[in-house]
Amino acid sequence: MHTLRAPYLLYLGDVQLKSDAKTAFGLRDWCRDKVLAEWSLPTATVSLGLDLLSPAMAAKHGAGSLIIGVAAVGGAIPDAWLDDLEQALDAGMDVVSGMHTRLSTFPRLVAAAARNGVKLIDVRHTDQPLPAGTGLKRSGKRLLTVGTDCALGKKYTALAITENLHKRGVAATFRATGQTGIMIAGAGIAIDAVVADFIAGAAELLSPANNAEHWDIIEGQGALFHPAYAGVTLGLLHGSQPDALVLCHDPSRSTIEGYPHMPLPSLAQAIDRYLEAARLTNRAVRCVGVSINSSTLTDSQAQDYFTRVRSELGLPVCDPLRGGVDALVDELVRSAAVQP
Amino acid sequence: MHTLRAPYLLYLGDVQLKSDAKTAFGLRDWCRDKVLAEWSLPTATVSLGLDLLSPAMAAKHGAGSLIIGVAAVGGAIPDAWLDDLEQALDAGMDVVSGMHTRLSTFPRLVAAAARNGVKLIDVRHTDQPLPAGTGLKRSGKRLLTVGTDCALGKKYTALAITENLHKRGVAATFRATGQTGIMIAGAGIAIDAVVADFIAGAAELLSPANNAEHWDIIEGQGALFHPAYAGVTLGLLHGSQPDALVLCHDPSRSTIEGYPHMPLPSLAQAIDRYLEAARLTNRAVRCVGVSINSSTLTDSQAQDYFTRVRSELGLPVCDPLRGGVDALVDELVRSAAVQP
Repeated sequence: MHTLRAPYLLYLGDVQLKSDAKTAFGLRDWCRDKVLAEWSLPTATVSLGLDLLSPAMAAKHGAGSLIIGVAAVGGAIPDAWLDDLEQALDAGMDVVSGMHTRLSTFPRLVAAAARNGVKLIDVRHTDQPLPAGTGLKRSGKRLLTVGTDCALGKKYTALAITENLHKRGVAATFRATGQTGIMIAGAGIAIDAVVADFIAGAAELLSPANNAEHWDIIEGQGALFHPAYAGVTLGLLHGSQPDALVLCHDPSRSTIEGYPHMPLPSLAQAIDRYLEAARLTNRAVRCVGVSINSSTLTDSQAQDYFTRVRSELGLPVCDPLRGGVDALVDELVRSAAVQP
Repeated sequence: MHTLRAPYLLYLGDVQLKSDAKTAFGLRDWCRDKVLAEWSLPTATVSLGLDLLSPAMAAKHGAGSLIIGVAAVGGAIPDAWLDDLEQALDAGMDVVSGMHTRLSTFPRLVAAAARNGVKLIDVRHTDQPLPAGTGLKRSGKRLLTVGTDCALGKKYTALAITENLHKRGVAATFRATGQTGIMIAGAGIAIDAVVADFIAGAAELLSPANNAEHWDIIEGQGALFHPAYAGVTLGLLHGSQPDALVLCHDPSRSTIEGYPHMPLPSLAQAIDRYLEAARLTNRAVRCVGVSINSSTLTDSQAQDYFTRVRSELGLPVCDPLRGGVDALVDELVRSAAVQP
């Protein structure tokens, strides 16, 4: 389990494309209270609109970690960034990366971390010994976001539900399973990076026993219908032992992204398959709603689509970015009240 | 993908219990033609009944690898074995281990391997970069053994089917997914040790495109009904894209071994769930039979049980150790002939 020291200095390197800075924007939008400032090279053309502080200055203002907020193509760390990263380490900050290349492959950074007693944290990797799954019921309540495909709003939906529960005064914790989620939450396990035997065990560790009324809102990964990643999805589902599922979907897709030969299931089929699989470790699991990524639809198209899905499935349907998740959380709170 | 150099010297260390030498007995029984001799410390009390040759002598007789054939409690390699292992490396052999502890954690062995230009092979681990699964159909035919639980005969059944096909003159390759299987086959991938994102991709790599009439007989792992390992099972199932499944079961079990709170499914339920999951990457998948580990039953109990299951499911039922797998392979060959 990774744990990050806030507040954060968000590092943008020499980023030229807003889409490459997705992680930094996600952190700014979802954990603004943990973000102190941003910093980048003079060649960068993208800004988050935050205060600009060099690593040394950010440390003076109390920053605990420099977080690399850019995902360049290929996931590599360019040499041009190393001066800034070393400056952060020398100022007493941890350096946090979600890139494929490990920070520990740079001898300069390893030496700087060692001489300052600070950490290089690769949230995409974990070397922690993990337990095998037990399948034993834990106290507390859990919701897992699942999807018809990858990359269609499972993290965003989980964050929106967590925020909504907090507004209602319900105790809830967002549990992160991917690199951006871990940076936002300040803790978590990159579930797709663990050794295959320990997927379910890692998921159990991620959402430990809690107060009976507390909700863990767990970020889903992959999809049961994905020919590459379904194993990750199933292990996460079994280890999470969710009481509630929310199905995430993008109506503009008819096949798995990048796999034009793999059709998506219908929403009803998807819900059936997720519930069937989830019952292995929690007989009482229910689907409490559908979260739609409707960014490709006009307002009226979106409303028509929501109405149709709502009547087909008899479940609340919403888009967190278009009207919020109130209907979904209403159903969650209602169904939790009548659960055994 | 690990590839091992035959013939093998089977090393028993200081083993006192026959059950701890399961790997060595499996190799003696399933790949006798690759096994040259055995060797052990004077304190060992178990023998395989083979010629005794020291590592140096075995190398003179052409041995390519010393294989550690013992799985001691905890999976550790005792210091007392290191002299023998170093002697093997100095004689030009590779040393192969299926233990949790990596051979590379012993500086003496690393140095000896380096100075002799030979390899330390940890079949339980893989550092090879793996691809993500593609879900694309490959030529050739594939059978995967699946189970109601772990450790009830999936490897043994796959080996018996491969041998039976060979006797019929059908081209077939056993594909190993666990450490003992890899040693027997001389190649394979420990599928439960790969990074979660690459389970299906590793399975695709393990059984590559082949002649249209060739059968890969793939060793299954885990079970879809196992709260710890179902993710491994599902990824292996998707990546294998099997045309045929054989369900393995032990009638003495009513719950998952070591998980008394997790009931086993019925055989019919298990077959339905495996076929449903397998259809994602191969619509034409069929279950061609059931392999029973009937070691806890008397002969007449076993025959009664086989008859009952056969009439319930309408499928061939056999125990590879009690009458062989002819009925099952008859069905496989028959169903392959009528497949699209």
